[in-house]
Amino acid sequence: MGGSIFGRNFRIATFGESHGKSVGVVLDGCPAGLELTEDDVQLELNRRRPGQSDVSTPRDEKDKVEFHSGIFEGKTTGHPIMMLVYNENQRSKDYSEVKDLFRPGHADFTYTSKYGFRDYRGGGRSSARETIGRVCAGAVAKKLLSGKGVSVIAHVKQVGSIKALEFDAEYIEKNPVRCADRNVAEKMRSLILSISEQGDSIGAVVEVIIKGVPVGIGEPVFDRIEAELAKAILSIPAVKGIEFGSGFEAATLRGSENNDEISKYGFLSNNAGGTLGGITTGQDIIFRFPVKPASSITVPKKTIDLFGNEKEIVTRGRHDACVAPRVVPVAEAMSAMVLVDMIMADNAGRNLF
Amino acid sequence: MGGSIFGRNFRIATFGESHGKSVGVVLDGCPAGLELTEDDVQLELNRRRPGQSDVSTPRDEKDKVEFHSGIFEGKTTGHPIMMLVYNENQRSKDYSEVKDLFRPGHADFTYTSKYGFRDYRGGGRSSARETIGRVCAGAVAKKLLSGKGVSVIAHVKQVGSIKALEFDAEYIEKNPVRCADRNVAEKMRSLILSISEQGDSIGAVVEVIIKGVPVGIGEPVFDRIEAELAKAILSIPAVKGIEFGSGFEAATLRGSENNDEISKYGFLSNNAGGTLGGITTGQDIIFRFPVKPASSITVPKKTIDLFGNEKEIVTRGRHDACVAPRVVPVAEAMSAMVLVDMIMADNAGRNLF
Amino acid sequence: MGGSIFGRNFRIATFGESHGKSVGVVLDGCPAGLELTEDDVQLELNRRRPGQSDVSTPRDEKDKVEFHSGIFEGKTTGHPIMMLVYNENQRSKDYSEVKDLFRPGHADFTYTSKYGFRDYRGGGRSSARETIGRVCAGAVAKKLLSGKGVSVIAHVKQVGSIKALEFDAEYIEKNPVRCADRNVAEKMRSLILSISEQGDSIGAVVEVIIKGVPVGIGEPVFDRIEAELAKAILSIPAVKGIEFGSGFEAATLRGSENNDEISKYGFLSNNAGGTLGGITTGQDIIFRFPVKPASSITVPKKTIDLFGNEKEIVTRGRHDACVAPRVVPVAEAMSAMVLVDMIMADNAGRNLF
Amino acid sequence: MGGSIFGRNFRIATFGESHGKSVGVVLDGCPAGLELTEDDVQLELNRRRPGQSDVSTPRDEKDKVEFHSGIFEGKTTGHPIMMLVYNENQRSKDYSEVKDLFRPGHADFTYTSKYGFRDYRGGGRSSARETIGRVCAGAVAKKLLSGKGVSVIAHVKQVGSIKALEFDAEYIEKNPVRCADRNVAEKMRSLILSISEQGDSIGAVVEVIIKGVPVGIGEPVFDRIEAELAKAILSIPAVKGIEFGSGFEAATLRGSENNDEISKYGFLSNNAGGTLGGITTGQDIIFRFPVKPASSITVPKKTIDLFGNEKEIVTRGRHDACVAPRVVPVAEAMSAMVLVDMIMADNAGRNLF
Repeated sequence: MGGSIFGRNFRIATFGESHGKSVGVVLDGCPAGLELTEDDVQLELNRRRPGQSDVSTPRDEKDKVEFHSGIFEGKTTGHPIMMLVYNENQRSKDYSEVKDLFRPGHADFTYTSKYGFRDYRGGGRSSARETIGRVCAGAVAKKLLSGKGVSVIAHVKQVGSIKALEFDAEYIEKNPVRCADRNVAEKMRSLILSISEQGDSIGAVVEVIIKGVPVGIGEPVFDRIEAELAKAILSIPAVKGIEFGSGFEAATLRGSENNDEISKYGFLSNNAGGTLGGITTGQDIIFRFPVKPASSITVPKKTIDLFGNEKEIVTRGRHDACVAPRVVPVAEAMSAMVLVDMIMADNAGRNLF
Repeated sequence: MGGSIFGRNFRIATFGESHGKSVGVVLDGCPAGLELTEDDVQLELNRRRPGQSDVSTPRDEKDKVEFHSGIFEGKTTGHPIMMLVYNENQRSKDYSEVKDLFRPGHADFTYTSKYGFRDYRGGGRSSARETIGRVCAGAVAKKLLSGKGVSVIAHVKQVGSIKALEFDAEYIEKNPVRCADRNVAEKMRSLILSISEQGDSIGAVVEVIIKGVPVGIGEPVFDRIEAELAKAILSIPAVKGIEFGSGFEAATLRGSENNDEISKYGFLSNNAGGTLGGITTGQDIIFRFPVKPASSITVPKKTIDLFGNEKEIVTRGRHDACVAPRVVPVAEAMSAMVLVDMIMADNAGRNLF
Repeated sequence: MGGSIFGRNFRIATFGESHGKSVGVVLDGCPAGLELTEDDVQLELNRRRPGQSDVSTPRDEKDKVEFHSGIFEGKTTGHPIMMLVYNENQRSKDYSEVKDLFRPGHADFTYTSKYGFRDYRGGGRSSARETIGRVCAGAVAKKLLSGKGVSVIAHVKQVGSIKALEFDAEYIEKNPVRCADRNVAEKMRSLILSISEQGDSIGAVVEVIIKGVPVGIGEPVFDRIEAELAKAILSIPAVKGIEFGSGFEAATLRGSENNDEISKYGFLSNNAGGTLGGITTGQDIIFRFPVKPASSITVPKKTIDLFGNEKEIVTRGRHDACVAPRVVPVAEAMSAMVLVDMIMADNAGRNLF
Repeated sequence: MGGSIFGRNFRIATFGESHGKSVGVVLDGCPAGLELTEDDVQLELNRRRPGQSDVSTPRDEKDKVEFHSGIFEGKTTGHPIMMLVYNENQRSKDYSEVKDLFRPGHADFTYTSKYGFRDYRGGGRSSARETIGRVCAGAVAKKLLSGKGVSVIAHVKQVGSIKALEFDAEYIEKNPVRCADRNVAEKMRSLILSISEQGDSIGAVVEVIIKGVPVGIGEPVFDRIEAELAKAILSIPAVKGIEFGSGFEAATLRGSENNDEISKYGFLSNNAGGTLGGITTGQDIIFRFPVKPASSITVPKKTIDLFGNEKEIVTRGRHDACVAPRVVPVAEAMSAMVLVDMIMADNAGRNLF
């Protein structure tokens, strides 16, 4: 069936694999009249691109976006916006070493099982380069939201056992880890560098905060705003969970502790994470998600080849030891697109009676 | 836009509110030829119904299912199966006390904001009675899966701070908490009863294990099996999170610990929770989710009324102090429907070249 | 995959077969706050029901609608509206005569081929009773449109070779054929009665006129308003075509004849049928469609049975010799739902920048 | 909401306008393992491109396709196939003459009303260049079908009042009109050339014949194969109608004439056009549709400008006097995609019980 189309009103179709000609997106459903330049999008791509700091892979890809359609005289036309980034270095290097091996933690085994073969060059479609299209479309969603006073901010909350305790939004883009706590950002960076030197990788937790959301967004029953966000976030490579508000901690709480009381000035707490019954309360939407340690490591691991022979594998190359800092813009993009889509769903029935 | 339709190939539209005439579901897309009786469905509804044990609400509703369409001579016809349960006691009792108050933790505030008014009788559409339609359709999905050797088992893994450590599938339906560990089930039950006596409620964690899943199910990029399951599970009332495999713990792990090695006999661990790249590996799919403490409590809490006046509220009535035992069949239903839907998506392209 | 769910924002799931317990619909996505009574819907059902005049089948079914959900204090709540009609006479009469035969013109052959068997009682799901759910939901759509000044009127334009030349909207419901031309309505009626006496049936053409449509409704490229209407209308049993504006006649016209000129008072003609580039111009939307002669006739015809033996078949029973008068409310229902759905789609992006 | 995404299993997102950088398509859901080259697609694009003969516009655009993703070692990978064609001559010529005028028969008026402004360079997104993406994806669908023994053939059945009476499939591509009747093809060509010289245009009828379709394809009720095809065909620019089998003629027929009898060797006629109850019978699917005379003509016509002033307009440029010959490959593309999509829908439930 595919799987590369997302959204209902604000819809995207992404395309491209690590070693194809280009990666990108067709965005259908963006309202007409939004001022939009390639720079608006490039800004977000630069936050995602490799080689931006010492904690990300030293592969230095420019990831320069090109607009192909949907813009006229600097404004969106209401028609599909196609944005693409040409892959550099797309000459396939020598992959003979891993060509027939299933890399643990990667999609090699499942893709081969499902499709009968796989594009072994850098992961093919399962490569994180696929997220470039998402970030492009997300930049448009963020600009739309910004015009409505809605902001989407993600930051790295935890790396290994090091947790951020303070939150300074200004600081996030000022450190390579994208941590919002000045006191721990450097510790996180040191940990990542040290693990990287060992050829290993480390997990993390990212938190997303959405401010300025109007009350009433989200549909009841199946299309709750948190269900839509959960689907969006769990579609990001390396993400295997999510929690809103008090989340897993709610398991240990009583109703008298977890229920958010209401005063005439608003809610007195936000254990709900900004939604009740699947619909926004007008408080911040807050959720966190774990990012698993990157699968590409040089610590030798057991695996098998295509023919069932047991082998030892080492995934050489220039990889991120902690992908969370680069997941931050992707999470913002996915969150922004869900918000726009659900605001549109809400608008749909507004003027009908 | 609605929000009460779910699925792509195996699709359901649920309907009904706590005090309407009936609640139920239209299931469209069930293959023809499946033997199906009302008993198959009733069995699952009985696991969900109130009054089944001392840890659930003493409201004793029979929740007797009626088939209205889609069955001919004991078999599904391939056409919509409409199943409904008439609401008993649907005469509205006196709701004057809470009619104008926003109950903390409930959808009262958001529904009123979104729709301009709310059905104040028992929560209306936000009532957990809405899940009856899900359980009906889920029973059909479970029967379809069962014919393919796939089973979906949920159990209560944690209540408050009490955690199950052992797993005995046989024991789950033998205790009212639906705990799989004989050593802690009674402690969980005691905790729930004690909290119930205090008019309070308590959170929990439920785990779902799906066995016998063929390799290759799930679509890449956006429609990953874990993204679809996350959406399905977070659409259940009171659920605010999910984690697959090592989940949030992966934040503290290294790649060398978290990657699942492969031998010629299969994977050597299952930190991935049964999926790689969004596609099933053939291992068990394993995930957990927190269930927040029920919002209806008699501990007095602050709130406001429709006119912005501050009030104190106590939610009287007969409510579950811990809803997790009754969420178990709902989680199984949602999981089974996602599995069937994604198997269908996978089948779609199989015979085309 | 099913096939019984329709729409994107204003969505319906219909259910039921001719000899099941009930037929009906779940309507999801109706805006909250619309005043709606069972009478509003019954009025439309009465126009569709059998036995309403001497040109329709003498089967006299009351088709009394029941609301099960989605209404609170006389208004829609924004949640699914389930409406059903119990089937009367649902005891299966003796179908042994046609049980194993494929009736020409009916879906017997294709349903058996697709599903492996068929519900032979009155056509099962392929029965026109399935359209009851459509008419129920359509009544709601018509009421929504009416509040916006949009009306949907269908009438029988042609029966056999007899064509209506004049259009008097008031007259449509005053004659059993639903013809808008006083001069030919009686001739059409006579023709139908005479053909009915011969045990045969006759085709017809129905025209739909939608007035008061705002300019700008419909989406470009694939989701053009006429494409959506075409799908909706061709989903009605017995309908095998459609044409908008000058339609098939445009094949013989020149651009200089077919292009609609524009003055400062508006368009000077309406060969386009009310749309340009898939989007409404604000003129009336006008289209026509052929209704094939009913398949159930007592003129003996050749067929085969399940085992491939050649047989002669006569379809006894009380059937309409011309179904067009009863297709009129179904066509209005489908058209109204498409209009509402596309107005919602248009609204979706309105307030976003 | 957009409108540029089509299909459910075999899904396309098209993009691009007449004077943007490129036009093309993302095709998601193509099964893995199909051998596919740019030549397979170019062959179909060459049938659509301008300048191919004296009856089409003399604009000579190469329309050279580029594959950007989804192919590995000459085979489809199961992932999105992005195909694009760079627009030549994309420098905007002088459009000052028509910039503020609404061209009769074009989407200028409706686009401006809906979006607040329009891309006045050659029609923008409403340009027929948009169909390039459809033809690209349709070429893939045709190749998939071809592997299953299904062929889709369209031909020009009528131009003005000249009708083809004979059908020689071999002859279609041997004459510039794509007429299947050797006796009238030259007459059609002469008519088109003569009308072209007068600066006018002429309408036509195209017929599509789909051979080798398996029995059982199509979903009942709303997603009938003819409803899906109707939507697809009416989404083609300039198409305002469709009829299957006996179509509009059925209005004048009796049931005893129109019902297709069945013998042990199969159906004895095909008035149904290859479907019963929305599902294929295994006979040829046959339908026809009118193509309106091209809107761009040099015969002066009345219109208004953006400010409501009445003007006279002449649409200069190099336009087709009859677009039907170039609509032929587009109709084949749309039909092939619907067939593939519905075969996939049918496959979806096949192996589940």
